[in-house]
Amino acid sequence: MPDPNRRNESSRRAILEATRALLAETGYADLTIGAIAARAGAGKQTIYRWWGGKSAVVLEALADSVAEAGTALPDTGDLRADLRAVLRATVAEFADPRLSATTRALMIETMGDDALAGQVRDRLLRPQLDGVKDRLRAGGVPPAIDLDLVVELLFGPLYHRWLLRTGPLDDGYADDLVDLVMAAIGERASG
Amino acid sequence: MPDPNRRNESSRRAILEATRALLAETGYADLTIGAIAARAGAGKQTIYRWWGGKSAVVLEALADSVAEAGTALPDTGDLRADLRAVLRATVAEFADPRLSATTRALMIETMGDDALAGQVRDRLLRPQLDGVKDRLRAGGVPPAIDLDLVVELLFGPLYHRWLLRTGPLDDGYADDLVDLVMAAIGERASG
Repeated sequence: MPDPNRRNESSRRAILEATRALLAETGYADLTIGAIAARAGAGKQTIYRWWGGKSAVVLEALADSVAEAGTALPDTGDLRADLRAVLRATVAEFADPRLSATTRALMIETMGDDALAGQVRDRLLRPQLDGVKDRLRAGGVPPAIDLDLVVELLFGPLYHRWLLRTGPLDDGYADDLVDLVMAAIGERASG
Repeated sequence: MPDPNRRNESSRRAILEATRALLAETGYADLTIGAIAARAGAGKQTIYRWWGGKSAVVLEALADSVAEAGTALPDTGDLRADLRAVLRATVAEFADPRLSATTRALMIETMGDDALAGQVRDRLLRPQLDGVKDRLRAGGVPPAIDLDLVVELLFGPLYHRWLLRTGPLDDGYADDLVDLVMAAIGERASG
Protein backbone atom coordinates (compact mmCIF):
# COMPACT_ATOMS: atom_id res chain seq x y z
CA MET A 1 0.00 0.00 0.00
CA PRO A 2 1.35 3.47 -0.81
CA ASP A 3 2.28 5.60 2.20
CA PRO A 4 -0.14 8.57 2.21
CA ASN A 5 2.52 10.72 3.87
CA ARG A 6 5.00 10.12 1.09
CA ARG A 7 4.97 13.11 -1.19
CA ASN A 8 4.49 12.65 -4.87
CA GLU A 9 6.96 14.92 -6.64
CA SER A 10 4.73 16.00 -9.52
CA SER A 11 1.84 16.81 -7.15
CA ARG A 12 4.24 18.67 -4.91
CA ARG A 13 5.45 20.78 -7.81
CA ALA A 14 1.91 21.48 -9.03
CA ILE A 15 0.85 22.60 -5.56
CA LEU A 16 3.85 24.93 -5.13
CA GLU A 17 3.36 26.32 -8.64
CA ALA A 18 -0.32 26.99 -7.89
CA THR A 19 0.63 28.65 -4.61
CA ARG A 20 3.04 31.03 -6.35
CA ALA A 21 0.51 31.86 -9.07
CA LEU A 22 -2.23 32.59 -6.54
CA LEU A 23 0.11 34.66 -4.35
CA ALA A 24 0.82 36.86 -7.37
CA GLU A 25 -2.85 37.06 -8.38
CA THR A 26 -4.68 37.42 -5.07
CA GLY A 27 -2.03 38.04 -2.44
CA TYR A 28 -1.36 36.24 0.83
CA ALA A 29 -4.39 37.38 2.82
CA ASP A 30 -6.94 36.01 0.33
CA LEU A 31 -5.01 32.84 -0.43
CA THR A 32 -6.82 29.67 0.72
CA ILE A 33 -5.83 26.02 0.82
CA GLY A 34 -9.02 25.30 -1.15
CA ALA A 35 -7.98 27.62 -3.98
CA ILE A 36 -4.50 26.10 -4.10
CA ALA A 37 -5.95 22.58 -4.22
CA ALA A 38 -8.39 23.51 -7.01
CA ARG A 39 -5.69 25.17 -9.11
CA ALA A 40 -3.25 22.30 -8.62
CA GLY A 41 -5.84 19.57 -9.17
CA ALA A 42 -4.98 18.15 -5.77
CA GLY A 43 -6.98 17.38 -2.64
CA LYS A 44 -7.13 19.85 0.24
CA GLN A 45 -6.34 16.98 2.62
CA THR A 46 -3.12 16.28 0.72
CA ILE A 47 -1.95 19.84 1.31
CA TYR A 48 -2.87 19.74 4.98
CA ARG A 49 -1.15 16.37 5.37
CA TRP A 50 2.06 17.42 3.62
CA TRP A 51 2.40 20.94 5.00
CA GLY A 52 -0.03 21.48 7.85
CA GLY A 53 -1.22 24.91 6.78
CA LYS A 54 -0.99 27.99 4.63
CA SER A 55 2.18 29.55 6.00
CA ALA A 56 4.16 26.31 5.56
CA VAL A 57 3.11 25.78 1.94
CA VAL A 58 3.80 29.44 1.11
CA LEU A 59 7.24 29.18 2.72
CA GLU A 60 8.08 26.11 0.67
CA ALA A 61 6.77 27.70 -2.53
CA LEU A 62 9.03 30.72 -1.96
CA ALA A 63 12.04 28.66 -0.82
CA ASP A 64 11.62 26.50 -3.91
CA SER A 65 11.74 29.44 -6.29
CA VAL A 66 14.72 30.94 -4.44
CA ALA A 67 16.53 27.60 -4.82
CA GLU A 68 15.61 27.41 -8.51
CA ALA A 69 16.68 30.98 -9.23
CA GLY A 70 19.93 30.36 -7.36
CA THR A 71 21.33 32.63 -4.68
CA ALA A 72 24.81 33.31 -6.07
CA LEU A 73 25.40 36.99 -6.81
CA PRO A 74 26.82 38.02 -10.17
CA ASP A 75 30.52 38.75 -9.93
CA THR A 76 31.38 41.51 -12.39
CA GLY A 77 34.67 42.18 -10.62
CA ASP A 78 33.17 45.37 -9.14
CA LEU A 79 31.97 44.61 -5.60
CA ARG A 80 30.30 48.00 -5.15
CA ALA A 81 28.27 47.61 -8.36
CA ASP A 82 27.25 44.04 -7.52
CA LEU A 83 26.12 45.01 -4.01
CA ARG A 84 24.18 47.97 -5.39
CA ALA A 85 22.40 45.63 -7.80
CA VAL A 86 21.34 43.19 -5.06
CA LEU A 87 20.20 45.97 -2.72
CA ARG A 88 18.26 47.70 -5.49
CA ALA A 89 16.57 44.36 -6.25
CA THR A 90 15.59 44.05 -2.57
CA VAL A 91 14.21 47.61 -2.61
CA ALA A 92 12.15 46.67 -5.70
CA GLU A 93 10.75 43.61 -3.88
CA PHE A 94 9.71 45.75 -0.92
CA ALA A 95 8.11 48.24 -3.34
CA ASP A 96 5.97 45.51 -4.96
CA PRO A 97 2.69 45.56 -2.99
CA ARG A 98 1.97 41.82 -3.39
CA LEU A 99 5.50 40.66 -2.54
CA SER A 100 5.69 43.14 0.30
CA ALA A 101 2.36 41.93 1.72
CA THR A 102 3.49 38.30 1.54
CA THR A 103 6.76 39.06 3.33
CA ARG A 104 4.87 41.09 5.94
CA ALA A 105 2.34 38.29 6.52
CA LEU A 106 5.02 35.63 6.85
CA MET A 107 6.94 37.86 9.23
CA ILE A 108 3.88 38.38 11.44
CA GLU A 109 3.33 34.61 11.60
CA THR A 110 6.99 33.88 12.36
CA MET A 111 6.92 36.30 15.29
CA GLY A 112 4.44 34.06 17.07
CA ASP A 113 5.77 30.70 15.87
CA ASP A 114 9.36 29.70 16.68
CA ALA A 115 9.36 26.62 14.43
CA LEU A 116 8.16 28.62 11.42
CA ALA A 117 10.69 31.36 12.27
CA GLY A 118 13.50 28.81 12.10
CA GLN A 119 12.23 27.53 8.74
CA VAL A 120 11.94 31.02 7.28
CA ARG A 121 15.45 31.80 8.46
CA ASP A 122 17.09 28.59 7.27
CA ARG A 123 15.23 27.95 4.01
CA LEU A 124 14.35 31.41 2.76
CA LEU A 125 16.65 33.97 4.32
CA ARG A 126 19.94 32.15 4.97
CA PRO A 127 20.53 31.00 1.37
CA GLN A 128 20.14 34.58 0.15
CA LEU A 129 22.38 36.04 2.86
CA ASP A 130 24.96 33.33 2.18
CA GLY A 131 25.01 34.31 -1.50
CA VAL A 132 25.94 37.86 -0.49
CA LYS A 133 28.51 36.56 1.99
CA ASP A 134 30.20 34.51 -0.73
CA ARG A 135 30.39 37.58 -2.98
CA LEU A 136 31.92 39.63 -0.14
CA ARG A 137 34.51 36.91 0.49
CA ALA A 138 35.39 36.78 -3.21
CA GLY A 139 35.60 40.59 -3.20
CA GLY A 140 38.49 40.54 -0.76
CA VAL A 141 36.92 41.74 2.49
CA PRO A 142 39.69 41.49 5.12
CA PRO A 143 39.37 38.19 7.06
CA ALA A 144 39.31 40.05 10.39
CA ILE A 145 35.86 41.38 9.47
CA ASP A 146 32.84 39.25 10.45
CA LEU A 147 30.95 38.67 7.18
CA ASP A 148 27.67 37.85 8.96
CA LEU A 149 27.84 41.31 10.44
CA VAL A 150 28.58 42.94 7.07
CA VAL A 151 25.59 41.16 5.52
CA GLU A 152 23.37 42.50 8.29
CA LEU A 153 24.88 45.95 7.82
CA LEU A 154 23.58 45.76 4.23
CA PHE A 155 20.12 44.28 4.86
CA GLY A 156 19.34 45.43 8.42
CA PRO A 157 18.79 49.10 7.47
CA LEU A 158 16.54 48.08 4.54
CA TYR A 159 14.35 45.94 6.80
CA HIS A 160 14.34 48.65 9.47
CA ARG A 161 13.15 51.27 6.99
CA TRP A 162 10.57 48.93 5.47
CA LEU A 163 9.13 47.68 8.77
CA LEU A 164 9.18 50.95 10.68
CA ARG A 165 8.57 53.24 7.68
CA THR A 166 11.17 55.72 8.84
CA GLY A 167 11.76 57.22 5.40
CA PRO A 168 11.82 56.65 1.63
CA LEU A 169 13.10 53.26 0.52
CA ASP A 170 14.46 53.76 -2.99
CA ASP A 171 17.49 53.21 -5.21
CA GLY A 172 19.24 56.27 -3.78
CA TYR A 173 18.94 54.81 -0.30
CA ALA A 174 20.32 51.47 -1.51
CA ASP A 175 23.29 53.17 -3.20
CA ASP A 176 24.15 55.38 -0.21
CA LEU A 177 23.93 52.35 2.06
CA VAL A 178 26.35 50.38 -0.13
CA ASP A 179 28.77 53.32 -0.17
CA LEU A 180 28.83 53.49 3.64
CA VAL A 181 29.29 49.73 3.95
CA MET A 182 32.11 49.83 1.37
CA ALA A 183 33.77 52.54 3.49
CA ALA A 184 33.29 50.37 6.58
CA ILE A 185 34.99 47.32 5.10
CA GLY A 186 37.86 49.38 3.79
CA GLU A 187 39.59 50.14 0.57
CA ARG A 188 41.13 46.69 0.25
CA ALA A 189 37.77 45.20 -0.63
CA SER A 190 37.04 46.52 -4.06
CA GLY A 191 37.01 43.66 -6.55
CA MET B 1 -20.77 69.96 32.75
CA PRO B 2 -17.28 68.40 32.46
CA ASP B 3 -16.34 67.05 29.04
CA PRO B 4 -16.02 63.26 29.45
CA ASN B 5 -13.44 63.19 26.65
CA ARG B 6 -11.17 65.63 28.44
CA ARG B 7 -8.41 63.69 30.10
CA ASN B 8 -7.75 64.21 33.76
CA GLU B 9 -3.99 64.43 34.21
CA SER B 10 -3.75 62.51 37.48
CA SER B 11 -5.97 59.70 36.18
CA ARG B 12 -3.94 59.62 33.00
CA ARG B 13 -0.72 59.24 34.95
CA ALA B 14 -2.18 56.56 37.22
CA ILE B 15 -3.38 54.55 34.22
CA LEU B 16 -0.03 54.77 32.44
CA GLU B 17 1.82 53.88 35.65
CA ALA B 18 -0.46 50.86 36.15
CA THR B 19 0.10 49.82 32.54
CA ARG B 20 3.89 49.89 32.96
CA ALA B 21 3.72 47.97 36.24
CA LEU B 22 1.48 45.28 34.76
CA LEU B 23 3.62 45.00 31.63
CA ALA B 24 6.61 44.27 33.85
CA GLU B 25 4.67 41.83 36.05
CA THR B 26 2.52 39.91 33.59
CA GLY B 27 3.75 40.85 30.11
CA TYR B 28 1.85 42.16 27.12
CA ALA B 29 -0.12 39.05 26.19
CA ASP B 30 -1.83 38.72 29.58
CA LEU B 31 -2.38 42.44 30.06
CA THR B 32 -6.05 43.44 30.08
CA ILE B 33 -7.83 46.78 30.18
CA GLY B 34 -9.73 45.46 33.22
CA ALA B 35 -6.51 44.82 35.13
CA ILE B 36 -5.15 48.28 34.24
CA ALA B 37 -8.40 49.92 35.37
CA ALA B 38 -8.40 48.00 38.68
CA ARG B 39 -4.77 48.84 39.43
CA ALA B 40 -5.22 52.51 38.55
CA GLY B 41 -8.52 52.90 40.35
CA ALA B 42 -10.10 54.07 37.09
CA GLY B 43 -13.05 52.89 35.03
CA LYS B 44 -12.54 50.56 32.06
CA GLN B 45 -14.75 52.89 30.00
CA THR B 46 -12.39 55.78 30.72
CA ILE B 47 -9.49 53.83 29.25
CA TYR B 48 -11.47 52.81 26.18
CA ARG B 49 -12.67 56.38 25.70
CA TRP B 50 -9.24 57.96 26.05
CA TRP B 51 -7.18 55.39 24.14
CA GLY B 52 -9.46 52.99 22.28
CA GLY B 53 -7.62 49.81 23.21
CA LYS B 54 -4.68 47.98 24.68
CA SER B 55 -2.03 48.73 22.07
CA ALA B 56 -2.69 52.49 22.25
CA VAL B 57 -2.46 52.70 26.03
CA VAL B 58 0.70 50.56 26.02
CA LEU B 59 2.23 52.79 23.35
CA GLU B 60 1.50 55.91 25.41
CA ALA B 61 2.83 54.29 28.60
CA LEU B 62 6.11 53.47 26.84
CA ALA B 63 6.34 56.83 25.03
CA ASP B 64 5.74 58.56 28.35
CA SER B 65 8.59 56.79 30.08
CA VAL B 66 10.90 57.41 27.10
CA ALA B 67 10.03 61.12 27.31
CA GLU B 68 10.61 61.16 31.07
CA ALA B 69 13.94 59.34 30.85
CA GLY B 70 15.02 61.70 28.07
CA THR B 71 16.47 60.60 24.77
CA ALA B 72 19.71 62.59 24.72
CA LEU B 73 22.80 60.37 24.69
CA PRO B 74 25.59 61.01 27.16
CA ASP B 75 28.43 62.91 25.54
CA THR B 76 31.69 61.78 27.13
CA GLY B 77 33.71 63.22 24.23
CA ASP B 78 34.28 59.66 22.94
CA LEU B 79 31.75 58.94 20.20
CA ARG B 80 32.71 55.27 19.89
CA ALA B 81 32.24 54.66 23.61
CA ASP B 82 28.91 56.51 23.70
CA LEU B 83 27.56 54.55 20.72
CA ARG B 84 28.71 51.27 22.25
CA ALA B 85 26.84 52.17 25.44
CA VAL B 86 23.56 52.88 23.62
CA LEU B 87 23.82 49.74 21.47
CA ARG B 88 24.66 47.58 24.47
CA ALA B 89 21.61 49.02 26.24
CA THR B 90 19.45 48.09 23.23
CA VAL B 91 20.90 44.56 23.25
CA ALA B 92 20.01 44.32 26.95
CA GLU B 93 16.43 45.40 26.20
CA PHE B 94 16.09 42.72 23.53
CA ALA B 95 17.52 40.15 25.98
CA ASP B 96 14.88 40.98 28.61
CA PRO B 97 12.04 38.50 27.92
CA ARG B 98 9.26 40.84 29.09
CA LEU B 99 10.53 43.90 27.23
CA SER B 100 11.26 41.83 24.18
CA ALA B 101 7.77 40.30 24.20
CA THR B 102 6.18 43.75 24.49
CA THR B 103 8.21 45.11 21.58
CA ARG B 104 7.39 42.01 19.54
CA ALA B 105 3.65 42.31 20.29
CA LEU B 106 3.57 46.01 19.42
CA MET B 107 5.47 45.30 16.21
CA ILE B 108 3.00 42.59 15.17
CA GLU B 109 0.10 44.97 15.75
CA THR B 110 1.76 47.83 13.87
CA MET B 111 2.29 45.59 10.83
CA GLY B 112 -1.46 45.36 10.37
CA ASP B 113 -2.37 48.89 11.49
CA ASP B 114 -0.96 51.89 9.63
CA ALA B 115 -2.18 54.46 12.14
CA LEU B 116 -0.60 52.61 15.06
CA ALA B 117 2.58 52.13 13.00
CA GLY B 118 2.81 55.91 12.53
CA GLN B 119 2.32 56.47 16.26
CA VAL B 120 4.95 53.91 17.23
CA ARG B 121 7.38 55.48 14.78
CA ASP B 122 6.75 59.10 15.77
CA ARG B 123 6.27 58.79 19.52
CA LEU B 124 8.40 55.84 20.51
CA LEU B 125 11.06 55.27 17.90
CA ARG B 126 11.81 58.70 16.39
CA PRO B 127 12.72 60.42 19.68
CA GLN B 128 15.26 57.70 20.44
CA LEU B 129 16.75 57.73 16.93
CA ASP B 130 16.91 61.53 17.05
CA GLY B 131 18.89 61.34 20.29
CA VAL B 132 21.49 59.21 18.53
CA LYS B 133 21.46 61.53 15.52
CA ASP B 134 22.19 64.52 17.75
CA ARG B 135 25.13 62.71 19.32
CA LEU B 136 26.51 61.81 15.86
CA ARG B 137 26.20 65.45 14.76
CA ALA B 138 28.00 66.65 17.89
CA GLY B 139 30.65 63.97 17.26
CA GLY B 140 31.69 65.58 14.00
CA VAL B 141 30.28 63.20 11.37
CA PRO B 142 31.02 64.86 8.01
CA PRO B 143 27.95 66.81 6.79
CA ALA B 144 27.95 64.94 3.47
CA ILE B 145 26.88 61.79 5.33
CA ASP B 146 23.12 61.23 5.79
CA LEU B 147 22.63 60.85 9.55
CA ASP B 148 19.30 59.06 9.17
CA LEU B 149 21.17 56.38 7.26
CA VAL B 150 23.92 56.15 9.89
CA VAL B 151 21.32 55.71 12.64
CA GLU B 152 19.75 52.86 10.65
CA LEU B 153 23.19 51.38 10.08
CA LEU B 154 23.47 51.17 13.87
CA PHE B 155 19.99 49.88 14.71
CA GLY B 156 18.98 48.02 11.53
CA PRO B 157 21.36 45.09 12.10
CA LEU B 158 20.24 44.77 15.74
CA TYR B 159 16.57 44.58 14.73
CA HIS B 160 17.42 42.20 11.88
CA ARG B 161 19.23 39.83 14.22
CA TRP B 162 16.52 40.06 16.87
CA LEU B 163 13.58 39.56 14.50
CA LEU B 164 15.09 36.93 12.26
CA ARG B 165 17.27 35.24 14.93
CA THR B 166 20.21 34.98 12.60
CA GLY B 167 22.81 34.75 15.36
CA PRO B 168 23.79 35.73 18.90
CA LEU B 169 22.79 39.24 19.96
CA ASP B 170 25.27 40.24 22.66
CA ASP B 171 27.69 42.97 23.72
CA GLY B 172 30.37 41.67 21.35
CA TYR B 173 27.98 42.06 18.44
CA ALA B 174 27.11 45.60 19.54
CA ASP B 175 30.79 46.55 19.83
CA ASP B 176 31.77 45.08 16.44
CA LEU B 177 28.83 46.85 14.84
CA VAL B 178 29.89 50.20 16.30
CA ASP B 179 33.46 49.64 15.07
CA LEU B 180 32.27 49.04 11.50
CA VAL B 181 29.98 52.07 11.58
CA MET B 182 32.81 54.21 12.96
CA ALA B 183 34.97 53.04 10.05
CA ALA B 184 32.12 53.87 7.65
CA ILE B 185 31.75 57.44 8.86
CA GLY B 186 35.49 58.02 8.78
CA GLU B 187 38.24 59.04 11.07
CA ARG B 188 37.13 62.65 11.29
CA ALA B 189 34.21 61.66 13.48
CA SER B 190 35.81 60.68 16.72
CA GLY B 191 34.78 63.10 19.43
